Amino acid sequence: MSQPVDRALRTRAARVIPGGMYGHQAVGALPEGYPQFFTRAEGPWLWDTDGNLLLDLMCAYGPQLFGYGNADIDRAYVEQMHVGDAMTGPSPLIVDLAETMVAMVSHADWAMFCKNGSDATTMALMVARSHTGRNAIVRAAGAYHGSQPWSNPRPRGISPTDQAGQHLCTYNDVASLEAAVKAAGNDLAAIFASPYRQDVFNDQSAPSLAYARRARQLADETGALLVVDEVRTGFRIARDCSWSLLKVAPDLSCWGKAIANGHPISALMGSEKARGAAEKIYATGSYWFAAAAMAASLATLNLIRSTDYLERITRLGDGLRTGLNAQAAAQGFTLRQTGPAQMPLILFDNDPDMRLGYFWSERMVAHGVYVHPWHNMFLSAAMTDANIDFALDAAQQAFAELAEAAPKLGPNTRYPGPKRA
Amino acid sequence: MSQPVDRALRTRAARVIPGGMYGHQAVGALPEGYPQFFTRAEGPWLWDTDGNLLLDLMCAYGPQLFGYGNADIDRAYVEQMHVGDAMTGPSPLIVDLAETMVAMVSHADWAMFCKNGSDATTMALMVARSHTGRNAIVRAAGAYHGSQPWSNPRPRGISPTDQAGQHLCTYNDVASLEAAVKAAGNDLAAIFASPYRQDVFNDQSAPSLAYARRARQLADETGALLVVDEVRTGFRIARDCSWSLLKVAPDLSCWGKAIANGHPISALMGSEKARGAAEKIYATGSYWFAAAAMAASLATLNLIRSTDYLERITRLGDGLRTGLNAQAAAQGFTLRQTGPAQMPLILFDNDPDMRLGYFWSERMVAHGVYVHPWHNMFLSAAMTDANIDFALDAAQQAFAELAEAAPKLGPNTRYPGPKRA
Repeated sequence: MSQPVDRALRTRAARVIPGGMYGHQAVGALPEGYPQFFTRAEGPWLWDTDGNLLLDLMCAYGPQLFGYGNADIDRAYVEQMHVGDAMTGPSPLIVDLAETMVAMVSHADWAMFCKNGSDATTMALMVARSHTGRNAIVRAAGAYHGSQPWSNPRPRGISPTDQAGQHLCTYNDVASLEAAVKAAGNDLAAIFASPYRQDVFNDQSAPSLAYARRARQLADETGALLVVDEVRTGFRIARDCSWSLLKVAPDLSCWGKAIANGHPISALMGSEKARGAAEKIYATGSYWFAAAAMAASLATLNLIRSTDYLERITRLGDGLRTGLNAQAAAQGFTLRQTGPAQMPLILFDNDPDMRLGYFWSERMVAHGVYVHPWHNMFLSAAMTDANIDFALDAAQQAFAELAEAAPKLGPNTRYPGPKRA
Repeated sequence: MSQPVDRALRTRAARVIPGGMYGHQAVGALPEGYPQFFTRAEGPWLWDTDGNLLLDLMCAYGPQLFGYGNADIDRAYVEQMHVGDAMTGPSPLIVDLAETMVAMVSHADWAMFCKNGSDATTMALMVARSHTGRNAIVRAAGAYHGSQPWSNPRPRGISPTDQAGQHLCTYNDVASLEAAVKAAGNDLAAIFASPYRQDVFNDQSAPSLAYARRARQLADETGALLVVDEVRTGFRIARDCSWSLLKVAPDLSCWGKAIANGHPISALMGSEKARGAAEKIYATGSYWFAAAAMAASLATLNLIRSTDYLERITRLGDGLRTGLNAQAAAQGFTLRQTGPAQMPLILFDNDPDMRLGYFWSERMVAHGVYVHPWHNMFLSAAMTDANIDFALDAAQQAFAELAEAAPKLGPNTRYPGPKRA
């Protein structure tokens, strides 16, 4: 795959952007040959700067739930933008949107809107501290709750005090959860939980009912607040907070990414119990009350309520999973496909430095399908059976190429994660 | 001013939004009669939900530099949005925008883009800690650097550790700056500075040359990084970092609000010295690499470089200031008008609980001019001499009404700030 335009852009970027790119969309830790820059997106498709067309199984790392450029959602954004967007106060749409979200999210009685997923998780932390007058938190090791200093997954630039009073447990391990709560003693403000175990580099797991229920119990026993961080999963597992499927109601939930199909807005939602504490914190941002993204969110929520998008992406994900397993087996590979089918993570068995996964992923991109070797992916409602067939055709070739190359593959020096079995 | 629609919205909002509204645009601490919600904005004008037309001297708290709905900027946003906005990677526009910003901001060799002003100031903190391997910071008491826990101006929901290792000085007081740096000892990572003293509730002051130079010297002597937080002031004082006017170059500068005329984007910029440290931190957000706001920013920067907007807003601000002073004096009041004329703060002398300021501001709104009683305001290039005349006509009436009412005004229970002289 020749990429002269992408290479030239990287050279320019290296001069004016640290590292040439930063954050979760930097491709330095992905297989060689992944494009860094994209010029165009439509429905399930992405075009890189060299004109290569890619079926995008990352959906912008989540935000694209109804596909790029959804006409209804984008029209709502543009129409509101021309009427009034970032003004000196909010538009009535903030009330409409809060009412709509509260009607959809069963545990919640109120909503506050912000921009980043990190804004919502940080506000959750502040509300829990405001509610309890305490400081400590319990969260699962390896779980991502945003890149603010208190939750940043890397140590560089972080002060030890930023993550003081954090007690880590192992997701789905009730005893470790109890031990972490005990370690927090009488200072526990919040228990943070991901909807399911969705750490990068590792097999995903559904939440065990025992773990979710025990988290709720421990919060009740200690007076701490239970927070479900729905930023990455929101509305891809349920049309409500995903733990509603377990009948476990958090006190706070964090939302972002898909709630406006890529338009910039996130939200913290809470139960009546936490309202007073939420009223007392100071949280704000320059663009938080902009109306266009709220109009886009209302249009997105309308599609969430009125279409079969969830059943569709689940069915498409199941088809992809089944097809890939058969193809892999036919070439002598065993895949570990975990997570909800509509948010799949695809790892290879017996691939400690992910050389198999990197080779296969690179071939997928070469054949026109953007996959990620160690982060969960995302399906969108813009995808069709034909798209899944297209992905499986690419995979068929990629597995065959991998079967031929596997015996001579050298160590994978680009893989940044922990060594795996 | 009858406000049945606004009142009905507040009733609905109180059910689904904590406190009915939150953050800097909540009007609970403003004079009674201020509208909370707005339906429409165009050029310098704002319409509240009851159809009242207001000349908006807040400009969305800064973002509106070229007025609401600027055609060139909004067209750039919409055109790019339809091509590709939040994708699985950035568009080439991130390189164009970084090059353009680096060419304009003389101290800077690189840029990183984000969403909130707080994102930029928090990244500055992280880069300084990454660069030095130290943790402490010096900043001026009362200066606002965003609502993240490390800089949040209110204690509620904040852990004492969030603001550990912070040494406060008094803006423009060289001895206090030196004392704070000394108190940080060998742990100093960063000296934060606002471009000028722009705290709410207080008279604004220009930065003294001695203070700015000493901050630079102390950073050099200790190895700490000097950060100028240009989020609120950016491109309203200079077409460069505002301290370029003092010939003092920071290592890092933070940008937001006006850089895309209200479209959501912010930036951290840095010098070569800080590049390596910036490469090592992890900072990211779901919508940070979205291309539409970058297109809008490029269009905004084009207007900044090619028009006399800065000279225009300065001249308009001077005219407003002169006119208001004369009107106030004629009615027996003394105003303290401070800050750059294009970012004016208007306080009344002998007004400890701001009862004069609140009454006058409320009358200004009643006469169609949105002013703020204790936060600096913002002029935009969409404003004209006729708009300033309109504001002065309103002010003429408001001062007359104040002169009549002043002797019988009771204590101002809504004023949330410190008691003043």
